[in-house]
Amino acid sequence: MKYANQLQNLGTETAFAVSAQAKEWADKGNKVYPFHLGDINLPTPENIVQATIKSINDGLTGYCPSEGILPLREALANDVGNKRGVNYEPDNVAIQPGGKPTIGKFISSIMNPGDEILYPNPGYPIYESQIEYQRGKAVPYSFVQTDSGFDIDIQKLSDSITDRTVALIYNNYQNPISAESSKNEMEAIAKIAIEHNLWVLSDEAYFEIVYDGDANSIVSLPGMKERTVILYTFSKKFAMTGWRVGGSIGPKEIIKRIAKLNVNAESCTTHFIQNAMVEALNGDQSGSINILNTLKDRRDATIKGLNAINGINITAPRTTFYLFPNVTKIMERKGLHKIEDLQNGALNNANVSFCTREHFGRAQADETDYYIRLAYSGISVEDINEGLIKLKDFFESQ
Amino acid sequence: MKYANQLQNLGTETAFAVSAQAKEWADKGNKVYPFHLGDINLPTPENIVQATIKSINDGLTGYCPSEGILPLREALANDVGNKRGVNYEPDNVAIQPGGKPTIGKFISSIMNPGDEILYPNPGYPIYESQIEYQRGKAVPYSFVQTDSGFDIDIQKLSDSITDRTVALIYNNYQNPISAESSKNEMEAIAKIAIEHNLWVLSDEAYFEIVYDGDANSIVSLPGMKERTVILYTFSKKFAMTGWRVGGSIGPKEIIKRIAKLNVNAESCTTHFIQNAMVEALNGDQSGSINILNTLKDRRDATIKGLNAINGINITAPRTTFYLFPNVTKIMERKGLHKIEDLQNGALNNANVSFCTREHFGRAQADETDYYIRLAYSGISVEDINEGLIKLKDFFESQ
Repeated sequence: MKYANQLQNLGTETAFAVSAQAKEWADKGNKVYPFHLGDINLPTPENIVQATIKSINDGLTGYCPSEGILPLREALANDVGNKRGVNYEPDNVAIQPGGKPTIGKFISSIMNPGDEILYPNPGYPIYESQIEYQRGKAVPYSFVQTDSGFDIDIQKLSDSITDRTVALIYNNYQNPISAESSKNEMEAIAKIAIEHNLWVLSDEAYFEIVYDGDANSIVSLPGMKERTVILYTFSKKFAMTGWRVGGSIGPKEIIKRIAKLNVNAESCTTHFIQNAMVEALNGDQSGSINILNTLKDRRDATIKGLNAINGINITAPRTTFYLFPNVTKIMERKGLHKIEDLQNGALNNANVSFCTREHFGRAQADETDYYIRLAYSGISVEDINEGLIKLKDFFESQ
Repeated sequence: MKYANQLQNLGTETAFAVSAQAKEWADKGNKVYPFHLGDINLPTPENIVQATIKSINDGLTGYCPSEGILPLREALANDVGNKRGVNYEPDNVAIQPGGKPTIGKFISSIMNPGDEILYPNPGYPIYESQIEYQRGKAVPYSFVQTDSGFDIDIQKLSDSITDRTVALIYNNYQNPISAESSKNEMEAIAKIAIEHNLWVLSDEAYFEIVYDGDANSIVSLPGMKERTVILYTFSKKFAMTGWRVGGSIGPKEIIKRIAKLNVNAESCTTHFIQNAMVEALNGDQSGSINILNTLKDRRDATIKGLNAINGINITAPRTTFYLFPNVTKIMERKGLHKIEDLQNGALNNANVSFCTREHFGRAQADETDYYIRLAYSGISVEDINEGLIKLKDFFESQ
């Protein structure tokens, strides 16, 4: 009895190992300041909980269509379309058990073995994993640090395109680096996609985690809606990471294929949860506004605490709940050459747990700077302040 | 922009088309007697609903481990192990969003392109779909009608094994034909699996839908636990088809791989639902007993109604909520040669909706008899009686 060889090309989320390490340290009696995982320690809004309970009591406990229930597909088509200034209909929507399933199903729908897909690196590790597992070639594109954040290296991205490139994965409001595209950058990406006739997966998991001003989607640009699948999730906006509900939104022909993959993968997404999501989208929004405000306070506290550390200088990003400070000066001062030494040191000396650049894809050859990723979605302002004072002590010591 | 070629090898559940047809007929103002779909029109037991609500209110709304929460993996290892007389530990269990995901993930874990997997035909259509989609060769094995039900054609199954055969899918308590193995038959299957060193996927979705006496699992036989993955689902026993929770149970090394596929596919199964499943397994069982009793009454009514039809003779199976009567004599009397003509006729003339043998895999070359499949899980005894009187009128007319 053997195992499938192809599993060797399947990646994972190495960030889970950081959780395990933090838990082990906490189990020894230490108070850990958890900046490592992108989970949210806030309750799901009460109107959503009540709509869920009502949906169970109304008997929505049996199977429902693999593509999702019509009322939710309608509500999501309207909500996503209105916020992006485009028209979507229910047939543009396939409901999923979370945001993540859209990644694998998008790739399954459009990639043949040997095809190439461009993906962001650093980026969410499942992109690379799914491309390689499904027998494609994962081609990374990268970012350049600027005074205020990060820009996509458009030239390098453009130079990486070959005859085999079929798609580009674009994660504006980016995990882990919190990058967001300028108007020019988004237009440049769209131009490349159109010129090379690429599909685009627009991972918009953080589209509604924008603290000031409006969010922008690449589907709003001319020629993009017809080649783009949006990854939508309820997880972040409504503090529902463990509920597992999201959607794939795109051209009807690809959505039909994604729905057929749903039939084969999991039949349908939890029926009564789908029904409650209509309330989430169309009902009282005060819950999600409170979540966003709380996250903003945490962002500001984390930025302040980090900038108080000698050697760190970071601008507050407008989006996500991650910060990606450059810690090269800290590494130099401490004489370290491996970023995991800094990570382990912070846990053991300051009780502060975080991920590093290495948890978000293989480092590329030309990278010389060191980065860590702090998530502030699962830690209170009080603990942020307390933890970052301890981190300052550790980072500033030699 | 193209689509993935491999999608051409992806199947679907054609039974959904029967639902659509029944709905269309109902929308025209007809009362439809729904014998077509394997959904359950009974409420989920109240203690499970209350445990779910409590779990939401307790804040179990964030991410949880991809392999499932430990308390549920413990409870399921104990429950499944005890009922089969074998020892399972939490590391033998990976929780899934339903029963179905185990099919694709089992195949992904052990099959290389070109490998062959034996599967039952008639059988659940997702087996063949997933094998062929994942670049394997789906090799059907078949059943022989007996006085009391169906036997697996062991000789034909055995003759179908080649050097490329890596696994056998075994669905005792079978959908759609309600077959169950005798002791001898199960031992013969086990012997073949061991001799040819095959993996076995034991689809035990209906293991707890057994109306009289005990259920048996192939994992209880010597040499089988170490090569078998059980497909477990909460859907049938607790009337929870739309909740989407189940599990893969098998050797630790394969479960580790399946859990890694979970990381890539959907992160985790709904957190608070997992927690409520501990109550489902360990709490008050009166709800599931009531469900089983109700289903038994429906089985008896359906058997009685069918046997009242001139030309149908069917023995009550001990298991599942499906009946698979041979309707060859009806077809002959009506001068029909296509089973869908009988199906359409029953809907249009008797308002009775059912699936046929054709919805459960491609008919094999040597098949001469005609079969239909009636599910009694979604229809009351009153409507069963009423509908089958109408069906009798239609079936007995020329």
